Amino acid sequence: MRFCVVLVGYGVSKVVDSGHPDFKAGELVWGITGWEEYSLITMPQQLNKIKYTDVPLSYYTGILGMPGLTAYAGFYDICSPKKGETVYVSAASGAVGQLVGQFAKLAGCYVVGSAGSQEKIDLLKNKFGFDDAFNYKEEQDLTAALKRCFPTGIDIYFENVGGAMLDAVLLNMREHGRIAVCGMISQYNKTQSDPVHNLFCLISKRILMQGFIEPDHRHKYPQFHEQVIQYIREGKVTYVEDVAEGLENAPSALIGLFSGKNIGKQVVLLAHE
Amino acid sequence: MRFCVVLVGYGVSKVVDSGHPDFKAGELVWGITGWEEYSLITMPQQLNKIKYTDVPLSYYTGILGMPGLTAYAGFYDICSPKKGETVYVSAASGAVGQLVGQFAKLAGCYVVGSAGSQEKIDLLKNKFGFDDAFNYKEEQDLTAALKRCFPTGIDIYFENVGGAMLDAVLLNMREHGRIAVCGMISQYNKTQSDPVHNLFCLISKRILMQGFIEPDHRHKYPQFHEQVIQYIREGKVTYVEDVAEGLENAPSALIGLFSGKNIGKQVVLLAHE
Repeated sequence: MRFCVVLVGYGVSKVVDSGHPDFKAGELVWGITGWEEYSLITMPQQLNKIKYTDVPLSYYTGILGMPGLTAYAGFYDICSPKKGETVYVSAASGAVGQLVGQFAKLAGCYVVGSAGSQEKIDLLKNKFGFDDAFNYKEEQDLTAALKRCFPTGIDIYFENVGGAMLDAVLLNMREHGRIAVCGMISQYNKTQSDPVHNLFCLISKRILMQGFIEPDHRHKYPQFHEQVIQYIREGKVTYVEDVAEGLENAPSALIGLFSGKNIGKQVVLLAHE
Repeated sequence: MRFCVVLVGYGVSKVVDSGHPDFKAGELVWGITGWEEYSLITMPQQLNKIKYTDVPLSYYTGILGMPGLTAYAGFYDICSPKKGETVYVSAASGAVGQLVGQFAKLAGCYVVGSAGSQEKIDLLKNKFGFDDAFNYKEEQDLTAALKRCFPTGIDIYFENVGGAMLDAVLLNMREHGRIAVCGMISQYNKTQSDPVHNLFCLISKRILMQGFIEPDHRHKYPQFHEQVIQYIREGKVTYVEDVAEGLENAPSALIGLFSGKNIGKQVVLLAHE
Protein backbone atom coordinates (compact mmCIF):
# COMPACT_ATOMS: atom_id res chain seq x y z
CA MET A 1 0.00 0.00 0.00
CA ARG A 2 1.32 3.46 -0.84
CA PHE A 3 0.25 6.71 0.75
CA CYS A 4 0.39 9.99 -1.05
CA VAL A 5 0.57 12.91 1.38
CA VAL A 6 -0.08 16.39 0.04
CA LEU A 7 0.91 19.31 2.26
CA VAL A 8 -1.89 21.84 2.41
CA GLY A 9 -2.02 25.52 3.14
CA TYR A 10 -3.83 28.72 2.28
CA GLY A 11 -3.51 29.57 -1.37
CA VAL A 12 -4.94 31.63 -4.19
CA SER A 13 -5.95 29.74 -7.33
CA LYS A 14 -7.81 30.02 -10.58
CA VAL A 15 -10.46 27.41 -11.35
CA VAL A 16 -9.35 25.39 -14.37
CA ASP A 17 -12.32 23.09 -14.51
CA SER A 18 -15.30 22.52 -12.24
CA GLY A 19 -18.19 20.14 -11.85
CA HIS A 20 -19.59 22.22 -8.98
CA PRO A 21 -22.40 24.63 -9.83
CA ASP A 22 -20.98 27.41 -7.63
CA PHE A 23 -17.53 27.45 -9.23
CA LYS A 24 -16.81 28.15 -12.89
CA ALA A 25 -13.61 27.87 -14.92
CA GLY A 26 -11.66 31.12 -14.81
CA GLU A 27 -12.91 32.22 -11.39
CA LEU A 28 -10.42 33.22 -8.72
CA VAL A 29 -10.64 31.52 -5.32
CA TRP A 30 -8.76 31.50 -2.03
CA GLY A 31 -8.68 28.89 0.68
CA ILE A 32 -7.03 25.60 1.54
CA THR A 33 -5.26 23.97 -1.38
CA GLY A 34 -2.29 21.63 -1.76
CA TRP A 35 1.36 22.52 -2.12
CA GLU A 36 1.15 21.72 -5.82
CA GLU A 37 0.65 23.46 -9.12
CA TYR A 38 -2.74 21.91 -9.78
CA SER A 39 -5.11 20.81 -7.01
CA LEU A 40 -8.12 18.54 -7.15
CA ILE A 41 -10.57 20.12 -4.72
CA THR A 42 -12.84 17.56 -3.07
CA MET A 43 -14.05 19.85 -0.28
CA PRO A 44 -15.24 23.04 -1.98
CA GLN A 45 -16.34 24.44 1.38
CA GLN A 46 -12.62 25.08 1.94
CA LEU A 47 -12.66 27.63 -0.85
CA ASN A 48 -13.98 31.18 -1.03
CA LYS A 49 -14.48 33.29 -4.11
CA ILE A 50 -12.31 36.35 -4.46
CA LYS A 51 -14.48 39.45 -4.34
CA TYR A 52 -11.98 42.30 -4.65
CA THR A 53 -9.29 42.14 -7.34
CA ASP A 54 -7.94 45.67 -6.99
CA VAL A 55 -5.36 44.39 -4.46
CA PRO A 56 -2.53 41.88 -5.03
CA LEU A 57 -4.14 38.44 -5.15
CA SER A 58 -1.51 37.11 -2.72
CA TYR A 59 -3.15 39.32 -0.06
CA TYR A 60 -5.80 36.59 0.27
CA THR A 61 -3.12 34.39 1.84
CA GLY A 62 -2.19 37.20 4.25
CA ILE A 63 -3.82 40.48 5.12
CA LEU A 64 -7.19 39.39 3.70
CA GLY A 65 -6.86 35.74 4.75
CA MET A 66 -6.05 33.69 7.82
CA PRO A 67 -3.29 35.92 9.28
CA GLY A 68 -5.40 39.01 8.69
CA LEU A 69 -8.45 37.64 10.45
CA THR A 70 -6.20 36.35 13.23
CA ALA A 71 -4.86 39.87 13.82
CA TYR A 72 -8.34 41.40 13.54
CA ALA A 73 -10.18 39.01 15.88
CA GLY A 74 -7.29 38.75 18.32
CA PHE A 75 -6.75 42.47 18.62
CA TYR A 76 -10.28 43.86 18.51
CA ASP A 77 -12.24 41.05 20.16
CA ILE A 78 -9.79 39.65 22.71
CA CYS A 79 -7.66 42.69 23.55
CA SER A 80 -10.58 45.18 23.67
CA PRO A 81 -8.27 48.14 22.94
CA LYS A 82 -9.01 51.60 24.27
CA LYS A 83 -7.53 54.83 22.97
CA GLY A 84 -4.33 55.74 24.76
CA GLU A 85 -3.50 52.22 25.91
CA THR A 86 -0.07 50.68 25.44
CA VAL A 87 0.32 47.67 23.15
CA TYR A 88 3.26 45.32 22.74
CA VAL A 89 3.53 42.95 19.78
CA SER A 90 6.19 40.24 19.54
CA ALA A 91 7.21 38.77 16.16
CA ALA A 92 5.89 42.13 15.08
CA SER A 93 6.99 42.15 11.45
CA GLY A 94 5.40 38.77 10.73
CA ALA A 95 2.22 37.95 8.86
CA VAL A 96 0.02 38.73 11.88
CA GLY A 97 2.17 41.11 13.94
CA GLN A 98 2.55 43.81 11.28
CA LEU A 99 -1.24 44.09 11.10
CA VAL A 100 -1.78 44.10 14.86
CA GLY A 101 0.58 47.04 15.14
CA GLN A 102 -1.23 48.97 12.43
CA PHE A 103 -4.66 48.18 13.91
CA ALA A 104 -3.35 49.37 17.28
CA LYS A 105 -2.22 52.68 15.80
CA LEU A 106 -5.62 53.09 14.14
CA ALA A 107 -7.18 52.50 17.58
CA GLY A 108 -5.14 55.35 19.07
CA CYS A 109 -2.78 53.15 21.08
CA TYR A 110 0.95 53.47 21.75
CA VAL A 111 2.57 50.48 20.04
CA VAL A 112 5.95 48.84 20.41
CA GLY A 113 7.07 45.76 18.49
CA SER A 114 10.00 43.40 18.70
CA ALA A 115 11.68 41.40 15.96
CA GLY A 116 15.02 39.73 15.29
CA SER A 117 16.96 41.97 12.90
CA GLN A 118 17.71 45.63 12.26
CA GLU A 119 15.99 45.37 8.89
CA LYS A 120 12.77 44.25 10.59
CA ILE A 121 13.06 46.96 13.27
CA ASP A 122 13.40 49.60 10.54
CA LEU A 123 10.32 48.17 8.83
CA LEU A 124 8.29 48.36 12.05
CA LYS A 125 9.18 51.97 12.69
CA ASN A 126 9.31 53.35 9.15
CA LYS A 127 6.76 51.31 7.22
CA PHE A 128 4.18 50.09 9.75
CA GLY A 129 4.21 53.14 12.03
CA PHE A 130 5.08 51.47 15.32
CA ASP A 131 5.99 54.09 17.93
CA ASP A 132 9.06 52.11 18.93
CA ALA A 133 10.67 48.74 18.28
CA PHE A 134 13.59 46.67 19.54
CA ASN A 135 15.68 43.72 18.39
CA TYR A 136 15.18 41.04 21.02
CA LYS A 137 18.37 39.30 19.95
CA GLU A 138 20.41 42.31 21.03
CA GLU A 139 18.85 42.66 24.48
CA GLN A 140 20.65 41.16 27.49
CA ASP A 141 17.55 41.48 29.64
CA LEU A 142 14.10 41.35 28.08
CA THR A 143 12.41 42.56 31.28
CA ALA A 144 14.60 45.66 31.25
CA ALA A 145 14.01 46.20 27.52
CA LEU A 146 10.25 46.20 28.05
CA LYS A 147 10.57 48.47 31.09
CA ARG A 148 12.56 50.90 28.90
CA CYS A 149 9.91 50.83 26.16
CA PHE A 150 6.94 50.88 28.55
CA PRO A 151 7.91 52.87 31.67
CA THR A 152 4.29 52.77 32.88
CA GLY A 153 3.60 49.19 31.78
CA ILE A 154 1.79 47.26 29.06
CA ASP A 155 -2.01 47.20 28.74
CA ILE A 156 -2.19 44.77 25.83
CA TYR A 157 0.24 42.06 24.76
CA PHE A 158 -0.25 40.27 21.47
CA GLU A 159 1.65 37.04 22.12
CA ASN A 160 3.35 35.38 19.17
CA VAL A 161 6.49 33.88 20.70
CA GLY A 162 6.09 32.42 24.23
CA GLY A 163 8.85 31.35 26.63
CA ALA A 164 11.21 33.93 28.12
CA MET A 165 9.47 36.79 26.34
CA LEU A 166 6.16 35.96 28.00
CA ASP A 167 7.88 35.86 31.39
CA ALA A 168 9.33 39.32 30.82
CA VAL A 169 5.98 40.65 29.62
CA LEU A 170 4.13 39.37 32.70
CA LEU A 171 6.42 41.42 34.94
CA ASN A 172 5.70 44.52 32.83
CA MET A 173 1.93 44.19 32.44
CA ARG A 174 -0.39 46.78 33.94
CA GLU A 175 -3.41 45.98 36.08
CA HIS A 176 -6.37 44.65 34.10
CA GLY A 177 -4.09 43.93 31.12
CA ARG A 178 -5.06 41.59 28.31
CA ILE A 179 -2.88 39.02 26.58
CA ALA A 180 -4.13 37.55 23.31
CA VAL A 181 -2.29 34.26 22.96
CA CYS A 182 -1.96 33.83 19.21
CA GLY A 183 1.22 31.79 18.84
CA MET A 184 4.40 30.68 20.57
CA ILE A 185 6.81 30.29 17.67
CA SER A 186 9.87 30.12 19.92
CA GLN A 187 8.46 26.90 21.39
CA TYR A 188 7.17 24.87 18.47
CA ASN A 189 10.28 22.77 17.77
CA LYS A 190 11.36 22.11 21.35
CA THR A 191 11.00 18.73 23.01
CA GLN A 192 10.16 20.53 26.24
CA SER A 193 8.79 24.04 26.22
CA ASP A 194 10.75 26.76 27.98
CA PRO A 195 9.57 27.45 31.52
CA VAL A 196 7.36 30.38 32.44
CA HIS A 197 7.80 31.50 36.03
CA ASN A 198 5.82 34.68 36.45
CA LEU A 199 2.20 33.59 36.18
CA PHE A 200 1.53 34.83 39.72
CA CYS A 201 1.31 38.25 38.03
CA LEU A 202 -2.02 37.13 36.59
CA ILE A 203 -3.58 37.43 40.04
CA SER A 204 -2.13 40.63 41.45
CA LYS A 205 -2.60 42.43 38.13
CA ARG A 206 -5.93 40.75 37.25
CA ILE A 207 -4.63 39.84 33.80
CA LEU A 208 -6.68 38.06 31.17
CA MET A 209 -4.92 35.56 28.90
CA GLN A 210 -7.00 34.16 26.08
CA GLY A 211 -5.81 31.63 23.55
CA PHE A 212 -7.52 31.69 20.17
CA ILE A 213 -7.33 30.35 16.64
CA GLU A 214 -8.71 31.70 13.41
CA PRO A 215 -11.27 28.95 12.61
CA ASP A 216 -13.44 30.06 15.57
CA HIS A 217 -13.78 33.51 13.98
CA ARG A 218 -14.44 32.69 10.32
CA HIS A 219 -17.98 34.05 10.47
CA LYS A 220 -16.36 37.47 10.79
CA TYR A 221 -14.74 37.35 7.32
CA PRO A 222 -17.41 39.48 5.60
CA GLN A 223 -17.20 42.38 8.10
CA PHE A 224 -13.41 41.97 8.28
CA HIS A 225 -13.02 42.15 4.49
CA GLU A 226 -15.22 45.24 4.22
CA GLN A 227 -13.21 47.00 6.91
CA VAL A 228 -9.73 46.02 5.79
CA ILE A 229 -10.21 46.48 2.05
CA GLN A 230 -11.25 50.04 2.89
CA TYR A 231 -8.12 50.53 5.01
CA ILE A 232 -5.97 49.22 2.14
CA ARG A 233 -7.63 51.49 -0.43
CA GLU A 234 -7.23 54.53 1.81
CA GLY A 235 -3.60 53.66 2.50
CA LYS A 236 -4.30 53.27 6.21
CA VAL A 237 -2.73 49.83 6.35
CA THR A 238 0.05 48.33 4.32
CA TYR A 239 1.35 44.78 4.03
CA VAL A 240 4.80 43.36 3.41
CA GLU A 241 5.32 39.93 1.89
CA ASP A 242 8.41 37.81 1.46
CA VAL A 243 8.01 36.00 -1.85
CA ALA A 244 9.74 32.70 -2.59
CA GLU A 245 9.43 31.81 -6.26
CA GLY A 246 8.63 28.24 -7.26
CA LEU A 247 7.36 25.22 -5.40
CA GLU A 248 10.91 23.90 -5.08
CA ASN A 249 11.68 26.80 -2.73
CA ALA A 250 8.65 26.24 -0.48
CA PRO A 251 10.32 23.82 2.00
CA SER A 252 13.24 26.14 2.74
CA ALA A 253 10.82 29.07 3.06
CA LEU A 254 8.82 27.10 5.64
CA ILE A 255 11.93 26.16 7.62
CA GLY A 256 13.12 29.76 7.45
CA LEU A 257 10.10 30.88 9.48
CA PHE A 258 11.52 29.24 12.59
CA SER A 259 14.80 31.14 12.40
CA GLY A 260 13.12 34.39 11.35
CA LYS A 261 14.65 34.41 7.86
CA ASN A 262 11.49 35.85 6.29
CA ILE A 263 10.69 39.54 6.28
CA GLY A 264 6.92 39.90 6.45
CA LYS A 265 4.36 37.33 5.41
CA GLN A 266 6.04 34.39 3.69
CA VAL A 267 4.34 33.45 0.45
CA VAL A 268 5.32 31.04 -2.31
CA LEU A 269 4.64 32.15 -5.87
CA LEU A 270 3.72 29.31 -8.22
CA ALA A 271 2.39 31.17 -11.22
CA HIS A 272 2.04 34.78 -12.30
CA GLU A 273 -1.54 35.74 -13.05
CA MET B 1 11.94 56.69 66.05
CA ARG B 2 9.88 53.58 66.74
CA PHE B 3 7.37 52.01 64.44
CA CYS B 4 4.40 50.06 65.61
CA VAL B 5 3.16 47.65 62.95
CA VAL B 6 -0.25 46.07 63.41
CA LEU B 7 -1.07 43.06 61.23
CA VAL B 8 -4.50 43.44 59.73
CA GLY B 9 -7.05 41.00 58.41
CA TYR B 10 -10.74 40.37 58.08
CA GLY B 11 -12.46 40.15 61.43
CA VAL B 12 -15.79 40.32 63.17
CA SER B 13 -16.08 42.83 66.02
CA LYS B 14 -18.50 44.56 68.33
CA VAL B 15 -18.37 48.36 68.52
CA VAL B 16 -17.29 49.36 72.03
CA ASP B 17 -17.38 53.08 71.48
CA SER B 18 -17.89 55.27 68.43
CA GLY B 19 -17.67 58.90 67.43
CA HIS B 20 -19.01 58.08 63.97
CA PRO B 21 -22.71 58.73 63.38
CA ASP B 22 -23.18 55.46 61.41
CA PHE B 23 -21.76 53.18 64.09
CA LYS B 24 -23.15 52.80 67.61
CA ALA B 25 -21.79 50.97 70.66
CA GLY B 26 -23.00 47.37 70.71
CA GLU B 27 -23.35 47.01 66.95
CA LEU B 28 -21.72 44.08 65.18
CA VAL B 29 -19.43 44.80 62.26
CA TRP B 30 -17.16 42.89 59.90
CA GLY B 31 -14.23 44.09 57.82
CA ILE B 32 -10.57 44.90 58.13
CA THR B 33 -9.37 45.14 61.71
CA GLY B 34 -6.04 44.55 63.47
CA TRP B 35 -4.69 41.33 64.93
CA GLU B 36 -5.52 42.62 68.40
CA GLU B 37 -8.24 42.39 70.98
CA TYR B 38 -9.29 46.03 70.65
CA SER B 39 -8.89 48.03 67.44
CA LEU B 40 -9.00 51.75 66.86
CA ILE B 41 -10.76 52.13 63.51
CA THR B 42 -9.61 55.20 61.62
CA MET B 43 -11.03 54.11 58.26
CA PRO B 44 -14.66 53.18 58.90
CA GLN B 45 -15.17 52.51 55.19
CA GLN B 46 -13.28 49.27 55.89
CA LEU B 47 -16.17 48.08 58.07
CA ASN B 48 -19.61 46.76 57.18
CA LYS B 49 -22.53 46.26 59.50
CA ILE B 50 -23.64 42.70 60.10
CA LYS B 51 -27.14 42.26 58.72
CA TYR B 52 -27.90 38.60 59.44
CA THR B 53 -27.16 37.17 62.89
CA ASP B 54 -28.85 33.79 62.46
CA VAL B 55 -25.54 32.32 61.24
CA PRO B 56 -22.25 31.96 63.14
CA LEU B 57 -20.70 35.43 63.23
CA SER B 58 -17.35 33.97 62.15
CA TYR B 59 -18.99 33.31 58.77
CA TYR B 60 -18.40 36.99 57.98
CA THR B 61 -14.67 36.20 57.83
CA GLY B 62 -15.38 33.28 55.48
CA ILE B 63 -18.42 32.19 53.56
CA LEU B 64 -20.07 35.63 53.88
CA GLY B 65 -16.83 37.59 53.63
CA MET B 66 -13.77 37.85 51.42
CA PRO B 67 -13.30 34.12 50.66
CA GLY B 68 -17.01 33.73 49.97
CA LEU B 69 -17.16 36.59 47.50
CA THR B 70 -13.93 35.32 45.94
CA ALA B 71 -15.54 31.94 45.29
CA TYR B 72 -18.78 33.53 44.08
CA ALA B 73 -17.27 36.07 41.68
CA GLY B 74 -14.55 33.72 40.48
CA PHE B 75 -16.87 30.83 39.79
CA TYR B 76 -19.97 32.53 38.43
CA ASP B 77 -18.47 35.56 36.69
CA ILE B 78 -15.14 34.25 35.42
CA CYS B 79 -15.83 30.54 34.90
CA SER B 80 -19.32 31.04 33.36
CA PRO B 81 -20.42 27.52 34.35
CA LYS B 82 -22.94 25.57 32.31
CA LYS B 83 -24.92 22.58 33.50
CA GLY B 84 -23.10 19.33 32.82
CA GLU B 85 -19.63 20.85 32.60
CA THR B 86 -16.67 19.41 34.49
CA VAL B 87 -15.02 21.48 37.23
CA TYR B 88 -11.73 20.92 39.01
CA VAL B 89 -10.86 22.76 42.23
CA SER B 90 -7.41 22.62 43.82
CA ALA B 91 -6.92 23.38 47.53
CA ALA B 92 -10.55 22.32 47.52
CA SER B 93 -11.18 22.08 51.25
CA GLY B 94 -9.88 25.60 51.92
CA ALA B 95 -11.77 28.79 52.66
CA VAL B 96 -12.55 29.40 48.98
CA GLY B 97 -12.35 25.93 47.44
CA GLN B 98 -15.03 24.31 49.58
CA LEU B 99 -17.50 26.93 48.38
CA VAL B 100 -16.51 26.72 44.72
CA GLY B 101 -17.21 23.00 44.82
CA GLN B 102 -20.63 23.52 46.37
CA PHE B 103 -21.52 26.31 43.93
CA ALA B 104 -20.46 24.02 41.08
CA LYS B 105 -22.77 21.25 42.31
CA LEU B 106 -25.62 23.76 42.59
CA ALA B 107 -24.88 24.75 38.97
CA GLY B 108 -25.27 21.12 37.86
CA CYS B 109 -21.58 20.50 37.18
CA TYR B 110 -19.42 17.43 37.80
CA VAL B 111 -16.89 18.48 40.43
CA VAL B 112 -13.58 17.00 41.53
CA GLY B 113 -11.34 18.50 44.20
CA SER B 114 -7.82 17.88 45.41
CA ALA B 115 -6.34 18.38 48.86
CA GLY B 116 -3.41 17.14 50.90
CA SER B 117 -4.77 14.62 53.43
CA GLN B 118 -7.25 11.78 53.68
CA GLU B 119 -9.25 13.77 56.24
CA LYS B 120 -9.68 16.57 53.72
CA ILE B 121 -10.58 14.17 50.92
CA ASP B 122 -13.28 12.65 53.12
CA LEU B 123 -14.59 16.12 53.86
CA LEU B 124 -14.79 16.96 50.15
CA LYS B 125 -16.71 13.83 49.29
CA ASN B 126 -18.88 13.42 52.36
CA LYS B 127 -19.53 16.95 53.58
CA PHE B 128 -19.25 19.23 50.54
CA GLY B 129 -20.70 16.85 47.96
CA PHE B 130 -17.79 16.76 45.51
CA ASP B 131 -18.30 13.94 43.00
CA ASP B 132 -14.70 12.82 43.46
CA ALA B 133 -11.52 13.94 45.19
CA PHE B 134 -7.86 12.95 45.36
CA ASN B 135 -4.88 13.52 47.63
CA TYR B 136 -2.27 15.23 45.45
CA LYS B 137 0.48 14.18 47.86
CA GLU B 138 -0.18 10.54 47.06
CA GLU B 139 -0.12 10.88 43.27
CA GLN B 140 3.07 10.07 41.38
CA ASP B 141 1.79 11.78 38.25
CA LEU B 142 -0.66 14.67 38.51
CA THR B 143 -1.42 14.58 34.77
CA ALA B 144 -2.44 10.93 35.06
CA ALA B 145 -4.48 11.63 38.22
CA LEU B 146 -6.48 14.31 36.41
CA LYS B 147 -6.90 12.09 33.36
CA ARG B 148 -8.31 9.39 35.67
CA CYS B 149 -10.75 11.85 37.30
CA PHE B 150 -11.67 13.61 34.04
CA PRO B 151 -11.49 11.07 31.18
CA THR B 152 -13.09 13.61 28.82
CA GLY B 153 -11.24 16.64 30.17
CA ILE B 154 -11.81 19.69 32.35
CA ASP B 155 -14.07 22.58 31.33
CA ILE B 156 -13.40 24.79 34.35
CA TYR B 157 -10.37 24.95 36.63
CA PHE B 158 -10.48 27.03 39.78
CA GLU B 159 -6.78 27.66 40.37
CA ASN B 160 -5.60 27.96 43.94
CA VAL B 161 -2.14 26.37 43.88
CA GLY B 162 -0.06 27.04 40.72
CA GLY B 163 3.17 25.33 39.63
CA ALA B 164 3.15 21.65 38.67
CA MET B 165 -0.59 21.35 39.25
CA LEU B 166 -1.32 24.06 36.68
CA ASP B 167 0.94 22.31 34.17
CA ALA B 168 -0.98 19.05 34.65
CA VAL B 169 -4.31 20.84 34.37
CA LEU B 170 -3.36 22.56 31.09
CA LEU B 171 -2.77 19.14 29.49
CA ASN B 172 -6.20 17.99 30.68
CA MET B 173 -8.28 21.04 29.78
CA ARG B 174 -11.00 20.81 27.16
CA GLU B 175 -11.42 23.20 24.27
CA HIS B 176 -12.84 26.58 25.27
CA GLY B 177 -12.03 25.85 28.93
CA ARG B 178 -11.86 28.59 31.58
CA ILE B 179 -9.31 28.95 34.35
CA ALA B 180 -10.09 31.37 37.17
CA VAL B 181 -6.72 32.23 38.68
CA CYS B 182 -7.50 32.88 42.32
CA GLY B 183 -4.30 31.92 44.09
CA MET B 184 -1.02 30.03 43.79
CA ILE B 185 -0.37 28.99 47.37
CA SER B 186 2.32 26.48 46.37
CA GLN B 187 4.40 29.39 45.06
CA TYR B 188 4.13 32.16 47.63
CA ASN B 189 7.21 31.37 49.70
CA LYS B 190 9.58 30.42 46.89
CA THR B 191 12.44 32.62 45.79
CA GLN B 192 11.77 31.53 42.22
CA SER B 193 8.38 30.25 41.20
CA ASP B 194 8.10 26.73 39.80
CA PRO B 195 8.16 26.56 36.01
CA VAL B 196 5.03 26.11 33.92
CA HIS B 197 5.73 24.48 30.57
CA ASN B 198 2.38 23.78 28.97
CA LEU B 199 1.00 27.21 28.14
CA PHE B 200 0.93 26.28 24.44
CA CYS B 201 -2.31 24.49 25.37
CA LEU B 202 -3.92 27.92 25.72
CA ILE B 203 -3.83 28.29 21.94
CA SER B 204 -4.85 24.90 20.63
CA LYS B 205 -7.62 24.60 23.23
CA ARG B 206 -8.62 28.30 23.16
CA ILE B 207 -8.40 28.52 26.94
CA LEU B 208 -9.19 31.62 28.94
CA MET B 209 -7.12 32.34 32.05
CA GLN B 210 -8.29 35.25 34.17
CA GLY B 211 -6.61 36.44 37.33
CA PHE B 212 -8.83 38.21 39.84
CA ILE B 213 -8.98 39.54 43.38
CA GLU B 214 -11.91 40.19 45.66
CA PRO B 215 -11.63 44.01 45.94
CA ASP B 216 -12.66 44.40 42.28
CA HIS B 217 -15.95 42.65 43.05
CA ARG B 218 -17.04 44.28 46.32
CA HIS B 219 -20.01 45.98 44.72
CA LYS B 220 -21.49 42.48 44.44
CA TYR B 221 -21.68 41.93 48.23
CA PRO B 222 -25.40 42.77 48.54
CA GLN B 223 -26.53 40.30 45.84
CA PHE B 224 -23.99 37.76 47.06
CA HIS B 225 -25.21 37.97 50.66
CA GLU B 226 -28.85 37.61 49.66
CA GLN B 227 -28.04 34.53 47.60
CA VAL B 228 -25.69 32.79 50.00
CA ILE B 229 -27.62 33.47 53.21
CA GLN B 230 -30.54 31.75 51.50
CA TYR B 231 -28.36 28.78 50.56
CA ILE B 232 -27.14 28.52 54.17
CA ARG B 233 -30.67 28.67 55.61
CA GLU B 234 -31.91 26.03 53.17
CA GLY B 235 -28.93 23.80 53.94
CA LYS B 236 -27.76 23.98 50.33
CA VAL B 237 -24.26 25.05 51.31
CA THR B 238 -22.25 24.33 54.40
CA TYR B 239 -18.99 25.74 55.71
CA VAL B 240 -16.15 24.24 57.70
CA GLU B 241 -13.86 26.36 59.82
CA ASP B 242 -10.65 25.54 61.65
CA VAL B 243 -10.69 27.57 64.85
CA ALA B 244 -7.51 28.57 66.67
CA GLU B 245 -8.31 29.99 70.10
CA GLY B 246 -6.49 33.08 71.29
CA LEU B 247 -4.36 35.69 69.59
CA GLU B 248 -1.22 33.90 70.75
CA ASN B 249 -2.10 31.04 68.41
CA ALA B 250 -2.65 33.27 65.36
CA PRO B 251 0.96 33.22 64.06
CA SER B 252 1.20 29.42 64.04
CA ALA B 253 -2.26 29.23 62.43
CA LEU B 254 -1.06 31.56 59.67
CA ILE B 255 2.12 29.58 59.08
CA GLY B 256 0.11 26.36 59.08
CA LEU B 257 -1.77 27.51 55.96
CA PHE B 258 1.35 27.03 53.86
CA SER B 259 1.78 23.39 54.87
CA GLY B 260 -1.95 22.66 54.75
CA LYS B 261 -2.29 22.12 58.51
CA ASN B 262 -5.73 23.75 58.60
CA ILE B 263 -8.93 21.93 57.72
CA GLY B 264 -11.32 24.44 56.19
CA LYS B 265 -11.28 28.18 56.68
CA GLN B 266 -8.71 29.16 59.30
CA VAL B 267 -10.15 31.56 61.86
CA VAL B 268 -8.76 32.87 65.15
CA LEU B 269 -11.21 33.24 68.00
CA LEU B 270 -10.46 36.14 70.30
CA ALA B 271 -13.65 36.39 72.32
CA HIS B 272 -16.89 34.45 72.60
CA GLU B 273 -19.90 36.64 71.90
